[in-house]
Amino acid sequence: MTNPSSFSPSCPVPLDKVRQWDIETDVAVVGFGAAGATSALEAARGGARVTLLEVASGNGGASALSGGEIYMGGSGGTPIQRAFGFEDSTEDMYRYLLMSTGPNADAEKVRLYAENSLEHYHWLTTQGIEYKTSYIAERCIEPITDDCLIWSGSEEAWPFAQKAKPAPRGHVAKFVGMGAGRYVMDVLARRVVEAGVDVRYNARALALVADHNREVHGLVSRIDGEIRFLRARRGVVLCAGGFIMNRDMLKRHAPRLLRCSNPIGTVDDGSGIRLGMSVGGSTINMSEGFTTLPWYPPGSMVKGIFVNGRGQRFINEDCYHGRVANYAVQQDGDRIWLLQDGATYAESPYHKAVRMEIGAAGDTWEEVEREINLPEGTLVNTVAVYNRYAAQGVDPLFNKAAAWLKPLVEPPFVAIDCRIDHCFYTTFTLGGLDTLPTGEVKDEDGAIIPGLFAAGRTACGLPRFGAGYSSGTSLGDATYFGRLAGKRLGSTLK
Amino acid sequence: MTNPSSFSPSCPVPLDKVRQWDIETDVAVVGFGAAGATSALEAARGGARVTLLEVASGNGGASALSGGEIYMGGSGGTPIQRAFGFEDSTEDMYRYLLMSTGPNADAEKVRLYAENSLEHYHWLTTQGIEYKTSYIAERCIEPITDDCLIWSGSEEAWPFAQKAKPAPRGHVAKFVGMGAGRYVMDVLARRVVEAGVDVRYNARALALVADHNREVHGLVSRIDGEIRFLRARRGVVLCAGGFIMNRDMLKRHAPRLLRCSNPIGTVDDGSGIRLGMSVGGSTINMSEGFTTLPWYPPGSMVKGIFVNGRGQRFINEDCYHGRVANYAVQQDGDRIWLLQDGATYAESPYHKAVRMEIGAAGDTWEEVEREINLPEGTLVNTVAVYNRYAAQGVDPLFNKAAAWLKPLVEPPFVAIDCRIDHCFYTTFTLGGLDTLPTGEVKDEDGAIIPGLFAAGRTACGLPRFGAGYSSGTSLGDATYFGRLAGKRLGSTLK
Repeated sequence: MTNPSSFSPSCPVPLDKVRQWDIETDVAVVGFGAAGATSALEAARGGARVTLLEVASGNGGASALSGGEIYMGGSGGTPIQRAFGFEDSTEDMYRYLLMSTGPNADAEKVRLYAENSLEHYHWLTTQGIEYKTSYIAERCIEPITDDCLIWSGSEEAWPFAQKAKPAPRGHVAKFVGMGAGRYVMDVLARRVVEAGVDVRYNARALALVADHNREVHGLVSRIDGEIRFLRARRGVVLCAGGFIMNRDMLKRHAPRLLRCSNPIGTVDDGSGIRLGMSVGGSTINMSEGFTTLPWYPPGSMVKGIFVNGRGQRFINEDCYHGRVANYAVQQDGDRIWLLQDGATYAESPYHKAVRMEIGAAGDTWEEVEREINLPEGTLVNTVAVYNRYAAQGVDPLFNKAAAWLKPLVEPPFVAIDCRIDHCFYTTFTLGGLDTLPTGEVKDEDGAIIPGLFAAGRTACGLPRFGAGYSSGTSLGDATYFGRLAGKRLGSTLK
Repeated sequence: MTNPSSFSPSCPVPLDKVRQWDIETDVAVVGFGAAGATSALEAARGGARVTLLEVASGNGGASALSGGEIYMGGSGGTPIQRAFGFEDSTEDMYRYLLMSTGPNADAEKVRLYAENSLEHYHWLTTQGIEYKTSYIAERCIEPITDDCLIWSGSEEAWPFAQKAKPAPRGHVAKFVGMGAGRYVMDVLARRVVEAGVDVRYNARALALVADHNREVHGLVSRIDGEIRFLRARRGVVLCAGGFIMNRDMLKRHAPRLLRCSNPIGTVDDGSGIRLGMSVGGSTINMSEGFTTLPWYPPGSMVKGIFVNGRGQRFINEDCYHGRVANYAVQQDGDRIWLLQDGATYAESPYHKAVRMEIGAAGDTWEEVEREINLPEGTLVNTVAVYNRYAAQGVDPLFNKAAAWLKPLVEPPFVAIDCRIDHCFYTTFTLGGLDTLPTGEVKDEDGAIIPGLFAAGRTACGLPRFGAGYSSGTSLGDATYFGRLAGKRLGSTLK
């Protein structure tokens, strides 16, 4: 039983087969991304001995690849929101997140997150994460400056704005340039070490150790090449990311995401999810994923319209870029066009980076229609209907907000090629283990699997529905619910 | 451990907690629908002692509610196909099924099914199921006569017809009226009893019994109100249907199906799937479901066009009714309209039964557009583009076949209301346990869980993708792969 190839994350090792424990701890955390860091930190501060296993030789995971944006608000607003006049209410944040996280939204998680997100902001700053008191009103993906507050979802767009008062809730840590996720992880990792967490790099969790009642007692790991049986008296927390880098799992569970050429992940081989399933943990939303294409900035692009390979619009274009891209990927066929006129079009370095190129241009929409081989009267009529109503300030088909409605009547007219199989669509998985807000993993009947916890993208968390994703909800979910799992374990004596 | 409420399908009972076996058998089959019947039959004929547990007081399950149609062909054609000139090739059947069963189609199952479906036809007739040598060329849902061969999929429609030579493959057993599934089950059930299978009705599988290596040794059941530990020396076959009657599972896994008001199922509480998951069985396609609305016959209706709540077409309407309905349910919003003109419209008793009613009528399409509150120029242009190309015998947008193209120019024009929340959309689940063709249940890493098998809708079988469903594939899959599991167990000595 000491040959690593004899272990599988999908098959637990029976407790009575463990001859001796090589390492004994209270809490074993698998994965040193944002969820692993915060759960280890809170568990250690609660008084637990914590061992954190990270398969890579450094910390960060996919969190460190992110923009470092955290979705926060409610309770009258964070200090940054309030500084710019956004008195964000908890109910508005709750309603927005409940609507946007899909038909099987987790109301309990959404409620907790909306109620405690201001507290979470203060906790993050207490850890040393700095936020500049600044606000970017314009549409952006993430700031290239060290600015903080941005609109990072579809709050101002239909149907969300009709049910919840909009507020910008994307809080980007103070870091010059894109990729503040690395900075956020650096700060959290320092706190983890200071809290006395026993961090093991180059440490892979090979299988869980469970007893006859499927209670989890620890895990088998390979640390620096050696098999180590690790006892976790209080529990194991799976924070090993999603499965975007596991093509076999994608093929079986989320084949649509294979259409996107740019997976965001580091390890993300689904091993955390597989470990959880091995003892009966239930998974949900395995086919869902975040998808995007940074088609704005500049904000003027939002005044353009998207059409599919039949020349049909399919979304109000003032939604968050990821919502629009998710709809694009759900269209039949590969062809997606972004139509702009001479007044709205602008070059963007983002477009070059993701291979969005002008596919056709003309002095009339008829010319563009012909050039991209759409049947006569399709694209032309789509634009005509849009223009006629836009001139009146309404969009009866998709309810795009008046601020973004402008008839596309100034030549030259262009169709930007946003083909799924050509452009650089970014994606990561949103499905995972079904958990309580405190991280306990549930079986398919809703019963708790003793000793097993999950957080971050190993769990199916707050963000679970690609079409409603908002930037900052994944890192927000990972850090906040990672903390809850850590607190639960820090305060539990088994 | 004898209180039934202390057992959960999601939590296996450890083998060493079993004090004594109340019943000992070679093979335990859970569920007496088509998959359970055929696996019990083949296992018993292979020499195994078989105990079949059925939770209801009679056999049949959802199979008995079906039209009794089985999708068969290939190998030059079944006798019925050949009698009407369809020399159906295995390769054409393979290609059609591979395309239509979705982006994560199981090529191995599709291959076996296409290659052995003629043999399966003969096996079914050998059991006593009769097929009349007759063929219905017209579009239908299922015959109200005792006729046999029908077009039960999208074989003649784009994109399938471009890649695979079409043939009708729906074989309906000889039974006057709809619902031949009851007849098919009656015949199979007689054979099951004759083969000496020990059938227990009013018998619920409460939990699996598994050892430390998650090998399944039997199950705990409640038979006529008494807890019984049942040892299955060779294995347990889960044939307990899907989860369409379990609203909690639907809410978590397939919330879209909750939009359909007519679930087809009997027990179908997902207990088979939950039993499999409890020992680490992997599930796939849990969000997928069959959906339909019998919008034809008469076939002339196919000459109409479907539009969504934005007046956009979304599918070539010459596809199988279930493919069209699946696309309808995937449209944003509830409104779906079927447009017909004076030449194509016909009353149908099916429409009344499923609450398809005329929502608007007019002498011009402009009138219809106004009456159903669509923005000016939307529906009218959709019809205009369709009509212009239909007059030339082409449909450049959706590739509807020429035979069904007719400009909709004869008043009165009508819009039939096919709203999802009003009409009687029928549905059942297609997600389930990931299995080998021989029924062995796989874990998330692809390893076999010893002693555990699944077939029918408890497994994710041949039909697994709602948008590509063809009638007769579910019953075909259940009977054929049920047989394979039974053969595997009949020939295995543990």
